[in-house]
Amino acid sequence: MKKSVVIVGAGFGGLKAARQLAKQKDVQITIIDRRNYHLFQPLLYQVATAGLSPADIATPIRSVFSGYSNVNVVYGNVQSIDKENKKVRTIDAEYPYDYLILACGAKHSYFGHNDWEENAPGLKTLEQATEIRRRILLSFELAEKEQDPDKRKTLLTFVIVGGGPTGVELAGSIAEISRYTLEKDFRSIDPSRTRVILIEAGPRVLAGFDESLSKKAARDLERLGVQIWTSTRVTEITSEGARLSEEFVKAKTVIWAAGVQPSSLSKALDAPLDRQGRVIINSSLTLENHPEIFVIGDQASFTQPDGSTLPGLAPVAMQQGTHAGRNIKRAIAGDAYTDFQYVDKGMMATIGRKKAIAQTTHLKFGGFMAWAAWLFVHIFYLIGFKNKFFVFFQWAWSYITFKRGARLILDKEWRSNQPPRASS
Amino acid sequence: MKKSVVIVGAGFGGLKAARQLAKQKDVQITIIDRRNYHLFQPLLYQVATAGLSPADIATPIRSVFSGYSNVNVVYGNVQSIDKENKKVRTIDAEYPYDYLILACGAKHSYFGHNDWEENAPGLKTLEQATEIRRRILLSFELAEKEQDPDKRKTLLTFVIVGGGPTGVELAGSIAEISRYTLEKDFRSIDPSRTRVILIEAGPRVLAGFDESLSKKAARDLERLGVQIWTSTRVTEITSEGARLSEEFVKAKTVIWAAGVQPSSLSKALDAPLDRQGRVIINSSLTLENHPEIFVIGDQASFTQPDGSTLPGLAPVAMQQGTHAGRNIKRAIAGDAYTDFQYVDKGMMATIGRKKAIAQTTHLKFGGFMAWAAWLFVHIFYLIGFKNKFFVFFQWAWSYITFKRGARLILDKEWRSNQPPRASS
Repeated sequence: MKKSVVIVGAGFGGLKAARQLAKQKDVQITIIDRRNYHLFQPLLYQVATAGLSPADIATPIRSVFSGYSNVNVVYGNVQSIDKENKKVRTIDAEYPYDYLILACGAKHSYFGHNDWEENAPGLKTLEQATEIRRRILLSFELAEKEQDPDKRKTLLTFVIVGGGPTGVELAGSIAEISRYTLEKDFRSIDPSRTRVILIEAGPRVLAGFDESLSKKAARDLERLGVQIWTSTRVTEITSEGARLSEEFVKAKTVIWAAGVQPSSLSKALDAPLDRQGRVIINSSLTLENHPEIFVIGDQASFTQPDGSTLPGLAPVAMQQGTHAGRNIKRAIAGDAYTDFQYVDKGMMATIGRKKAIAQTTHLKFGGFMAWAAWLFVHIFYLIGFKNKFFVFFQWAWSYITFKRGARLILDKEWRSNQPPRASS
Repeated sequence: MKKSVVIVGAGFGGLKAARQLAKQKDVQITIIDRRNYHLFQPLLYQVATAGLSPADIATPIRSVFSGYSNVNVVYGNVQSIDKENKKVRTIDAEYPYDYLILACGAKHSYFGHNDWEENAPGLKTLEQATEIRRRILLSFELAEKEQDPDKRKTLLTFVIVGGGPTGVELAGSIAEISRYTLEKDFRSIDPSRTRVILIEAGPRVLAGFDESLSKKAARDLERLGVQIWTSTRVTEITSEGARLSEEFVKAKTVIWAAGVQPSSLSKALDAPLDRQGRVIINSSLTLENHPEIFVIGDQASFTQPDGSTLPGLAPVAMQQGTHAGRNIKRAIAGDAYTDFQYVDKGMMATIGRKKAIAQTTHLKFGGFMAWAAWLFVHIFYLIGFKNKFFVFFQWAWSYITFKRGARLILDKEWRSNQPPRASS
């Protein structure tokens, strides 16, 4: 009798777990995801800033496992988990499991201000990325037509909330687009007078990095023309702009790159959560008293021996996915679980053309070398030959020409009987 | 004093006209388009069938003219034309002209049944292409989960209305995807049992081609598994399927590739229209009594010396665009307009892998040679080195691997607070 393993979520963690188990003959795997594709989230900001197309950073989940007949992919939305009867329920079906791996990831937290989302989209999905792209490109188009200098200034002001890697990458990209890509294309406006404001509540951007690197990144951003406002809190976001500490800054485009909260499935699990809402797991990556339920990646709260919890990073999710898969294999073979140990291979963040920072336990470096390392690592981890090749070629092309490959303003309405209005 | 030329629409015709005039120092050009990109429409069906990404077949209009300081690109929606005062009006501004070129193209006609659009999208825009892609891919995903054999059959039935080039290309592509691309990826359904029905009101598909080629194309389609129903009319389209002559065929996905009507701006022009609603123009491509107004491409009705009117094809629009530009140059130089003469370089249509048909005045051929010619011509006319390279590479990759590069089901909603539901 085959053991049934249900994996919810085909992000970095879920995919690694499935790959670990896909070769096992005694295991039947069901991967359930709301999407039909695996998304390479670290490059999502490049879709939002018109550098890459959605398909460049997404791979159909079915394609990844087409060669493994014991892997079943389900396009579905998990609603609840029946821990007692060991079943996962979607709207239209239920899936019994012997082992369950939850790898549902995270979504944005507006800290209780969900109404801010309308005027400040976050960047977690491809739909959000193309919405942000639409807003950025539309702002330049509307500014080109605008006669009123005040309104024009509002259109050319971009506020990015959150000084972590995503916020930094977005701010750097928008500044670069306006300075290099769009400069020759507009007649009435000067895109290089674009104002990009990066807001950070803490005292410095990229707080996860060493202070010297964080300073270097801030200098590089400022050289690109980004204004960095640290120790600044957002208290209001409207369609007119954002209130930053006391000052109201008029801006047509506000982007949310701040708080993160785990998938809503965590609450449905009825298990202890940490302060950020992540599911608390033990050293073998399972729920206390439920050794058959693994929780990994951004959804999980794993406490390291030194008392700190692991951050929501792709390498953490990947290593946990592999470990969860291995532990299941051990259990089936009659062996005990082993403890998860995170191997920190370092962190990197990119600021723009030839500018990035990287740090490992022993090394800290910035500039061109860090940027080259960033390029290499991201191409290397992209799934599929075609995606690797395309992204590499897009980057080479953009690097040489200063152009962006996906400068499209796509409308939300497809029906021709309700024609899109260019001025909205 | 520079002459002002306003061009409405940056399709094949508008772009050619602008290029013809862009080098003239005594001309100021304003291109107005509702989109920020030029769309290579002949490959739109490949976006609809997950072969190419939207950005692969679209180029920003501003990029095309960034080197020409006398070209001004306006992102706007033209509402009306004041022929007396020689002004074009958008919602928020007006643009005076000495010469006007209208190149607004066409949209789908549902023959008075606009309510059919919801259940049978047409294929004229990128938004429609991604909507069709979403529906096709979603149908396979839902069929995989469906237990009821009747419902499953409905999900795997695709009805394409219209046996012209677009309908043929769509039908061929869907049949190919189901037979080659998706076959190994599904476990419960057999995608190759997909039913693709191509509906044509006339007696044969591709009626614009020679009868022998049209028969060859029909045979090739049938070999791929497409059912061709000629002399069949659609009398009803609902969310359940379509009534084809007398029979109601249950189908989850219906695609409209039939009637075409010119842009709604034609009516606002208050000029004589032909039976299909196209603006009637004279031999110099202008309105009678308004030699300063040119109408070209799909929006125009041009009668050839033999009494026939030119069809809505890219080569017609391109040649007319060039001719309109030249006539304006002549007028500015004090010379009279010359008559437009269409040079028919032939037609081609593709059915699928290694299968196409092509005909010129002297030649008729099908099979691999026609397919290779089709590939070459389409790559050649694509704008921009990057797009050429990408499309070529995507095709090579798809040809070798039988895969599709853009298999994404993207949701219409980007807000995370209203999560997408996988089962709708």
